[in-house]
Amino acid sequence: MTQNRQVLLKSRPSGEPTTANFEIVEREVAALAEGDVLVRTLFLSLDPYMRGRMNEGRSYAASVDVGGVMVGGTVGEVVESRAEGFAKGDNVLGFGGWQEYAILPGKSLRKLDPKAAPLSYALGILGMPGMTAYVGLLDLAQPKAGETVVVSAASGAVGSVVGQIAKIKGCRAVGIAGGAAKCEYVVKELGFDACVDHRDPMLPKNLRAACPKGIDVNFENVGGAVLQAVWPLMNDFGRVSVCGLIAQYNDTTLAPGPSWLLLLARRLKVSGFIVSDHMARMADFLRDVSGWMREGKIKYREDVVEGLEKAPEAFLGLLKGTNFGKLIVKMGD
Amino acid sequence: MTQNRQVLLKSRPSGEPTTANFEIVEREVAALAEGDVLVRTLFLSLDPYMRGRMNEGRSYAASVDVGGVMVGGTVGEVVESRAEGFAKGDNVLGFGGWQEYAILPGKSLRKLDPKAAPLSYALGILGMPGMTAYVGLLDLAQPKAGETVVVSAASGAVGSVVGQIAKIKGCRAVGIAGGAAKCEYVVKELGFDACVDHRDPMLPKNLRAACPKGIDVNFENVGGAVLQAVWPLMNDFGRVSVCGLIAQYNDTTLAPGPSWLLLLARRLKVSGFIVSDHMARMADFLRDVSGWMREGKIKYREDVVEGLEKAPEAFLGLLKGTNFGKLIVKMGD
Repeated sequence: MTQNRQVLLKSRPSGEPTTANFEIVEREVAALAEGDVLVRTLFLSLDPYMRGRMNEGRSYAASVDVGGVMVGGTVGEVVESRAEGFAKGDNVLGFGGWQEYAILPGKSLRKLDPKAAPLSYALGILGMPGMTAYVGLLDLAQPKAGETVVVSAASGAVGSVVGQIAKIKGCRAVGIAGGAAKCEYVVKELGFDACVDHRDPMLPKNLRAACPKGIDVNFENVGGAVLQAVWPLMNDFGRVSVCGLIAQYNDTTLAPGPSWLLLLARRLKVSGFIVSDHMARMADFLRDVSGWMREGKIKYREDVVEGLEKAPEAFLGLLKGTNFGKLIVKMGD
Repeated sequence: MTQNRQVLLKSRPSGEPTTANFEIVEREVAALAEGDVLVRTLFLSLDPYMRGRMNEGRSYAASVDVGGVMVGGTVGEVVESRAEGFAKGDNVLGFGGWQEYAILPGKSLRKLDPKAAPLSYALGILGMPGMTAYVGLLDLAQPKAGETVVVSAASGAVGSVVGQIAKIKGCRAVGIAGGAAKCEYVVKELGFDACVDHRDPMLPKNLRAACPKGIDVNFENVGGAVLQAVWPLMNDFGRVSVCGLIAQYNDTTLAPGPSWLLLLARRLKVSGFIVSDHMARMADFLRDVSGWMREGKIKYREDVVEGLEKAPEAFLGLLKGTNFGKLIVKMGD
């Protein structure tokens, strides 16, 4: 029987998670039922939303059970298929989780063409993070040419795409990122107009200087002190797309948000959103972003960690911002 | 020369205003310039937004200068006209301020037909407050039949209309108001499904009981503790129209807002708005609300104070919620 290494949620974190909240086990792969596909994982996506799944209680998606396999998007290769349309050797995108093998319903899989783009891109620029940037910016915030768009976690899987689409749409793109190296990358490689370092205690002043006409659109990935710096700079009729609040995910109490007096006086619109509610835009997203990549208008960077056993530590680093680009786990052969 | 009593802003309040922040003076009416109209005030509208105009600094509209006449919407009678289209005896709606006479540009005035509706209604149900309810509910929050709509300050000029339109649209309308008398009025007279008293320390629990299916739309007039009770009950894809935050207007620091973790997880949309940005909807508003009044579907209550000298104290009461219905100052003869 095939052995399957898995990363389980061993215990729920209170506050900041540690590697002790995870456990690596080895189990036999079960038999395939009709309609299912056995997929060997090639790449596992690590994303901030996974922190929420480690908690108990109501969120927009079910928690991972204690003792359950950590959830996550994966790209893999079909080992065995009992589902129509899938054959051994096919490359597929699915939600396989933190494990070497997954049994997934054929209906939940999307076939990938390895010649169209590197397979792992389906977990990033051509997948959920890229589409998050696309719908959160274009559909919810509707930026107009000449406006100033600010995005936090600007070198990350989502933020990097937000700023580059903002530039394509004729906006001023201003990033917020952690550290000089990321800020330099955001401006020099990605072509943002400016990027400010959220670790600098002068963040509010520096952000103000980078946004001389104020902020029309804020794409929020971080929350906390970063959001506090953005908020007073919002212009009348500004739009805020709330995509993530990674600085607050380890909070054990619900931290308050920014003042509504300003929200009212400036007629701001603040929209929380989750990409899975916007799947109808998938075809538009793939067409536009693929096209922009071919034209060299969108660049993309991965931070690849090798080996499933590295996933817990890499994920903890993601929560602290130590990754640089879209975080991907490449499975061992 | 005609003598004109005026209420001036004598000093800016720090925190809660008092009558000492106002001063009543008597001045001669100036001569009319070409294009202007001299209007004798019949009714002055007192509204929460005026608190913001007493402050210095950036808001959505200019502050009243210290020593300047307090601003406000008025219904009056033309005494003398040098503007085309206006003649002595015409009734007009304008922005005359807290004074017995105002010289106003003809272009800023709208003529009123005293036979169509009581003149003072142009300051309430058929004016700015009514239209605020209309656009804030229908355009920004887009309630659907069967949804639960909560509105604070539910017996007031705006809130009472919000709940009644919600009922017309097939929603469950739940009010929040101060005290048993107002709550009873909101349910028995206005036809809301329920109303909870914000003075009751059990407000969060009572509101939850009044909204067994959660809250889909919140029309926020109050902020503070009332908003804190509403927020955790918001359903997925809930909409919040932020019209006013009267509980916070006397704050000397910017109080934080509710948690964005919930805004994100439930994909809420929060929109600050000001009716003057939505004037294109005026004709629709007047047609619909006039029609609903004729059909008996919308009821309206005024709280009328007699005499300009009563305006400061009445306004201070408005900020504390001691009025009951749309607050109007009827000028002496």
